Amino acid sequence: PTKSREYQQQDTAVEHDLYVSLEDIDKGCTKKMKISRNVIAPDGTRKKEDKVLTITVKPGWKAGTKITFPREGDQTTGKIPADIVFIIRDKPHPTFKRENCDIRYTAKISLRDALCGTTINVPTLQGQSIPLNLTNRVIKPSTVEKIPGKGLPYPKEASRKGDLLISFDIQFPDKLPSSAKDILLDILPAK
Amino acid sequence: PTKSREYQQQDTAVEHDLYVSLEDIDKGCTKKMKISRNVIAPDGTRKKEDKVLTITVKPGWKAGTKITFPREGDQTTGKIPADIVFIIRDKPHPTFKRENCDIRYTAKISLRDALCGTTINVPTLQGQSIPLNLTNRVIKPSTVEKIPGKGLPYPKEASRKGDLLISFDIQFPDKLPSSAKDILLDILPAK
Repeated sequence: PTKSREYQQQDTAVEHDLYVSLEDIDKGCTKKMKISRNVIAPDGTRKKEDKVLTITVKPGWKAGTKITFPREGDQTTGKIPADIVFIIRDKPHPTFKRENCDIRYTAKISLRDALCGTTINVPTLQGQSIPLNLTNRVIKPSTVEKIPGKGLPYPKEASRKGDLLISFDIQFPDKLPSSAKDILLDILPAK
Repeated sequence: PTKSREYQQQDTAVEHDLYVSLEDIDKGCTKKMKISRNVIAPDGTRKKEDKVLTITVKPGWKAGTKITFPREGDQTTGKIPADIVFIIRDKPHPTFKRENCDIRYTAKISLRDALCGTTINVPTLQGQSIPLNLTNRVIKPSTVEKIPGKGLPYPKEASRKGDLLISFDIQFPDKLPSSAKDILLDILPAK
């Protein structure tokens, strides 16, 4: 096949990171992004033009998802304008960490509560506070509790949701009096 | 510049992973790798040939280091043989984890020892066993102890060594009798 002389080259796509909060990933959202581009009028004059691109983020979208707006880059003579690409990124959340469709909450509890039992309130992404009964067992540093269905939607099945995982950051005392140590030697297993 | 018609292409390099133990990274070592390649004799006949390539791994080399043997790949008419490249990889170690020039050892200790104090023996990559006094303070899940100079050599300064870091995996009891819990409620801080 012969190459047409009108064959035009296109610059590599212009990529922008789009940080989305976990709340927006949970419910889905619409983001309006203003871009500024060089355009060439039919009479050949060049000017700067602002344009708003609308991105519909669907519930459960994963970080790394790309949304492409073809040929929305700068116009230059003899070249196809570059594509504009937005890449979804997870905005760091103060309370939760995303793990695919699950989210993880780390609860700070004292060593005393970990050993003797307590009830904690677990926040959810949907704004609830769910009581979690931790009595009648010992919470270890490796313990993970799970509240099913309180994570993020599955992107291909938005009615199904991941889990809310709870890890524990057990706060030890900085030091203990030797009287307390003597008693602990008696009541804790040597293992 | 005009391109010579004798210009020859070269296939992309053939890469092999070379797994090296932390002990070998510590001291440096020599690895002999047997490769098998197609060669073309001056009379044009082809045959299979075994060849031994010798790799000198210097102390402290990092995973990802590449050693290239130029043009040691298969010989074919009209093409430059590919380069043979070995890529250093860390062989997983049963006791230590590499962190650049430091190595990390995780000591399992009971909650009783973490709170009341103990002395543990820390193994080193060099086959020693170093006593570590953990009395007079509380060991927390986040505690990291350090034995300086018992890590891996710095690749550009082999006389200098990283540290041996010690983390703690604190073993909690699976459950406690309520009599023990009553006492713990008294002697552990509520914080």
